[in-house]
Amino acid sequence: MAMLRSYVSGQWHTPSVEGAPLHDAVTGEEIARISSAGVDMAAALDHGRRVGGPALRELTFHQRAALLKALASHLREHRDELYALSARSGATRTDSLIDVDGGIGVLFGYASKAKRELPNASVYVDGGLEPLSRGGTFLGQHIATPLRGVAVQINAFNFPMWGPLEKFAPAFIAGVPSLIKPASQTAYITEKLVSLMLDSGLLPEGAVQLVCGSAGDLLDHLTEQDLVGFTGSASTAQHLRTHPAVVRSSVRFNAEADSLNCSILGPDAEPGTPEFDLFVKQLVSEMTVKAGQKCTAIRRALVPAGLLDAVAEAARERLAKVVIGNPANESVRMGALAGLEQREEVRRSLKALLEAGDVVYGSLDRVDVVDADAERGAFMSPVLLKADPDRAQPHEVEAFGPVSTLLPYDGVEQAVELAARGTGSLVGSVVTYDADFARDVVLGVAPWHGRLLVLDRDDAKESTGHGSPLPALVHGGPGRAGGGEEMGGIRGVLHHMQRTAVQGSPRVLTAVTGRWVAGAERNTEGEHPFRKSLAELRVGDTVVAGPRTVTLDDIEHFASFTGDTFYAHMDEEAAAANPFFGGRVAHGYLVVSFAAGLFVSPEPGPVLANYGLENLRFLTPTFPGDELTVTLTAKQITPREDQEYGEVRWDADLVNQKGESVAKYDVLTLVAKTR
Amino acid sequence: MAMLRSYVSGQWHTPSVEGAPLHDAVTGEEIARISSAGVDMAAALDHGRRVGGPALRELTFHQRAALLKALASHLREHRDELYALSARSGATRTDSLIDVDGGIGVLFGYASKAKRELPNASVYVDGGLEPLSRGGTFLGQHIATPLRGVAVQINAFNFPMWGPLEKFAPAFIAGVPSLIKPASQTAYITEKLVSLMLDSGLLPEGAVQLVCGSAGDLLDHLTEQDLVGFTGSASTAQHLRTHPAVVRSSVRFNAEADSLNCSILGPDAEPGTPEFDLFVKQLVSEMTVKAGQKCTAIRRALVPAGLLDAVAEAARERLAKVVIGNPANESVRMGALAGLEQREEVRRSLKALLEAGDVVYGSLDRVDVVDADAERGAFMSPVLLKADPDRAQPHEVEAFGPVSTLLPYDGVEQAVELAARGTGSLVGSVVTYDADFARDVVLGVAPWHGRLLVLDRDDAKESTGHGSPLPALVHGGPGRAGGGEEMGGIRGVLHHMQRTAVQGSPRVLTAVTGRWVAGAERNTEGEHPFRKSLAELRVGDTVVAGPRTVTLDDIEHFASFTGDTFYAHMDEEAAAANPFFGGRVAHGYLVVSFAAGLFVSPEPGPVLANYGLENLRFLTPTFPGDELTVTLTAKQITPREDQEYGEVRWDADLVNQKGESVAKYDVLTLVAKTR
Repeated sequence: MAMLRSYVSGQWHTPSVEGAPLHDAVTGEEIARISSAGVDMAAALDHGRRVGGPALRELTFHQRAALLKALASHLREHRDELYALSARSGATRTDSLIDVDGGIGVLFGYASKAKRELPNASVYVDGGLEPLSRGGTFLGQHIATPLRGVAVQINAFNFPMWGPLEKFAPAFIAGVPSLIKPASQTAYITEKLVSLMLDSGLLPEGAVQLVCGSAGDLLDHLTEQDLVGFTGSASTAQHLRTHPAVVRSSVRFNAEADSLNCSILGPDAEPGTPEFDLFVKQLVSEMTVKAGQKCTAIRRALVPAGLLDAVAEAARERLAKVVIGNPANESVRMGALAGLEQREEVRRSLKALLEAGDVVYGSLDRVDVVDADAERGAFMSPVLLKADPDRAQPHEVEAFGPVSTLLPYDGVEQAVELAARGTGSLVGSVVTYDADFARDVVLGVAPWHGRLLVLDRDDAKESTGHGSPLPALVHGGPGRAGGGEEMGGIRGVLHHMQRTAVQGSPRVLTAVTGRWVAGAERNTEGEHPFRKSLAELRVGDTVVAGPRTVTLDDIEHFASFTGDTFYAHMDEEAAAANPFFGGRVAHGYLVVSFAAGLFVSPEPGPVLANYGLENLRFLTPTFPGDELTVTLTAKQITPREDQEYGEVRWDADLVNQKGESVAKYDVLTLVAKTR
Repeated sequence: MAMLRSYVSGQWHTPSVEGAPLHDAVTGEEIARISSAGVDMAAALDHGRRVGGPALRELTFHQRAALLKALASHLREHRDELYALSARSGATRTDSLIDVDGGIGVLFGYASKAKRELPNASVYVDGGLEPLSRGGTFLGQHIATPLRGVAVQINAFNFPMWGPLEKFAPAFIAGVPSLIKPASQTAYITEKLVSLMLDSGLLPEGAVQLVCGSAGDLLDHLTEQDLVGFTGSASTAQHLRTHPAVVRSSVRFNAEADSLNCSILGPDAEPGTPEFDLFVKQLVSEMTVKAGQKCTAIRRALVPAGLLDAVAEAARERLAKVVIGNPANESVRMGALAGLEQREEVRRSLKALLEAGDVVYGSLDRVDVVDADAERGAFMSPVLLKADPDRAQPHEVEAFGPVSTLLPYDGVEQAVELAARGTGSLVGSVVTYDADFARDVVLGVAPWHGRLLVLDRDDAKESTGHGSPLPALVHGGPGRAGGGEEMGGIRGVLHHMQRTAVQGSPRVLTAVTGRWVAGAERNTEGEHPFRKSLAELRVGDTVVAGPRTVTLDDIEHFASFTGDTFYAHMDEEAAAANPFFGGRVAHGYLVVSFAAGLFVSPEPGPVLANYGLENLRFLTPTFPGDELTVTLTAKQITPREDQEYGEVRWDADLVNQKGESVAKYDVLTLVAKTR
């Protein structure tokens, strides 16, 4: 029988002991055996810290992003091997798409986010400069640097691809090595995933490790620079969170636990409205996709009391059409649970729920299946219940399978109150076309949710649905949902980094961040900085140009040329009555246009285009006769990995003859890498 | 004897039991007694949630900021009462300034940050819109809403004013009520503080409560919407972090623990340099201010091996001049420890340190004091040690008093390695004029630090020093320092709020956030939106203007008028060779100037000024003959609480005759509240 291997300390490790059997969810056949016996956990962590971390930290964010994108493409080419294994976990083709393509999508998403939103550097500059002194010699700047430990990622059985990948991607972009520990039931899929990742040859050694089987004494060896990311049950989360090593070293611990997510139908969404149909369709889909084994599935469907019967009827009709059975059969819409134990657990929870409710559809012990044996395979019928919303069970008992409960409510306040009784959820949805109702519910229940979907006729076609976490959005929830937060774009990257407030002079902050900080030395020697290629340009390179006098004629001319005849430019008396000007002033657009005329170097050269401006503030009005001088300084240089040019951000400071700042802004340009 | 009172559930509570005595640190006299006996902790939490929270949530961020500022002014008027009490804790006038004025400064700091960086609304919009669909009907937006619980704030004895206030300010701005639990030793100062806060009449009932004495069963009653902020020892932090209620409900738990902070002298900073003097002066100051009872004090002074003797000698000289004694005597530079028990604990730790080092200055049991009794008061001599940096004790044992250890190092790498042996610190400092050394050390030790100060001749005069946390900067550190983060400006506010990803159509996201989202309905009916006062204007109000044709004459004219003769505007052949243009194009400044000419409403009216532009991106080049149309839509409306006007952010979208976006940007204006 095949033994699942672990990949630790630079090599594959095959356990010599017998190990525990893993079974095909559809046929009950044994697939493989699993054990982590013999894996040296302390050495694995040490390997990640000593080998993986340093290798990752040698790369910039953009270089890591490029590797991640290549890795995603590599995995995409091997999707079929993953689909085949995924089917053995009971997953239909649609279910596999969510897990396999969804996981690959997270890699693409993070690669693209990192390229767009992070610098091509290894230090992240967090937020703006904090002025800490009048004279400007002392400032603060938050930075983020990668933690020097290992991100230990403990995953759940239901997403053996997506789960590890959504934890790996932000850690990798941050520059932190991962140690993946899949749940045993479906670890054969994760083992395949990691072997494909390693085979790609794209990842620095130590960037990813895999432990199949029990975690053993892994957590005992954690230090203050390691992290733990856990997905699974709330009780296991509590157990791990209080592990002595986690507590002793204040290890960053992120938990994402199953929760009793709700979907709320608006009172406007009567039968016949698009929203009524969307609600029912989504409810049935969330019950049956992955056989309801999603921590984001809808467990509580809150329906206006008067609409409860109509919803129950419509859901019954839809559920009756769901074909259950062997995922290999194309007519099948819902496959098996992950295993017989899972089914037993769902049945147990269902019995607890039935103490407070009645069955609307389905059966605890009977199910019709196609192409499969309903008892050897872990099949069960979807079960929709209805219950009294004042009872405790529907808000406390989770049946982690194709199970949901209809709960009637009366008015926004009760809907919000019932939603909150889940004591913290990963996601909730509101299905309504009434924007006021949507706003009231969203703002009312937001403190208990990590994500909220408002579904209606406008977004339904493009909506990704209640159950789908997305790399750009946070995934996690307060309270019962574990109190954690994963993904959320760059937020998930920063979770793997230490934020540090650095205080110092502009010169020192420039050296630390690689970004020029106002007040640091400027280099005005040599060529005009627009004549320098990206390779030659340095932060601090500066051109000072001017002065140019702004005349009343200029103002009047600009007004008639552009059509901008705002009274503050045209009418002395009216302008004098304005609280800010006290007389006619030049247009803001005029002064920045004149500044460009001063600082530009017109001949063809490395500067290719001005693609934008940022943070422009007009600070002092310009009156006729004022003389303007502009100082333009290279502030940040961002070569693009895949282009012959990069981005240069320039600090523009426009002052008048009294030395007052007239305008400050950043000029964004594209500059060629070579002349 | 005076009994310290608690303020809970809307009233002052005086315990009927005897309570534990609190002593004057200077004279040993009993000051008051303390006990929380009889306080109903569950009721207090419930009062905060039911009364304080809703009252705070009725206010906008700016309204809370205005109250906080007024509260700060109120406390400033009563400083003398606080100084008098502060002296009884052993604090000199300078020490009191740090605690009292420092605490008031945090309130002013938060009031100002909130006004500048938060909207005048109650929902925080976190980050940008996340496009989730090609068609633009489905987007994501993260928001933050106040947690619906109570921020339980457990403070340390050493900062009875600043400690509670730095926790209260961000919670208050977030809209979350505080329950303050001071450490017993100095609770008489916090009791006075809270009574002054309540007397101000500025705070809504329930926004602040006080428990003097033991926390009793307080934590047992926490729910998933409450928070705990703890400052104190690492061991107590671990104990509280694993409290069953904290774990069960994933309560947000933030710890700020004493750490073995280091200060690193650069090899360039030889005797005679300003940095050498700054290092020694700062070291002595951090040892003696608050008698070294600061969680941010320097415990480990890392000095190039060759400079160790010189530093020891200079520090000895400086320490010898420190006058110790009754803080009431103006010559006194260092007062007493907080109590005799503290002194005993410091002596115990000192003995452990002496196993690995030698005394450079000071004595464990002898101290000369002025105007005081050295034994009845908790006085002790500053003690400077030197030790072998390879020994464990200097990196592990904290003597929470006027104690520091000199440790020699050799080279950047060893300095970084030794700093990391503190396993996580609140703060570190680097004293050097070598910017490369500063950068290498900062980036090397940043993962182990919440804050890093680089001190040199440039910033020394304005520097706030190693030991001073600032409201704009994060305060906290990884690992041993507790793994938490407080303050950091708005970051500390967001810690008290739940971040939620909201997914929906532009119409719904506009309703939820109060900010117009592109794709949502625009109102082009009625008056030009520039004719509307702030009271009349609504998000979505729009003017569409144009088209205007841009001619080659316009481009040439603009070039000669402004002086911006960049080749892409002037030379067909050269422009055609540019990778982005393919021919002569209009200036970016020209097209936005024309756009302003199109959308402006020139007559005097509510729009007072254009104070800036943001996020301007040029998306498609404009060629001669192109026709431009601009759409300007009110996006965000921010009335100012203390002015007759407010800010309006407009979404500008400039398109050409093919409907392609030429430029997108935000126009920032000031608009009068009434016509």
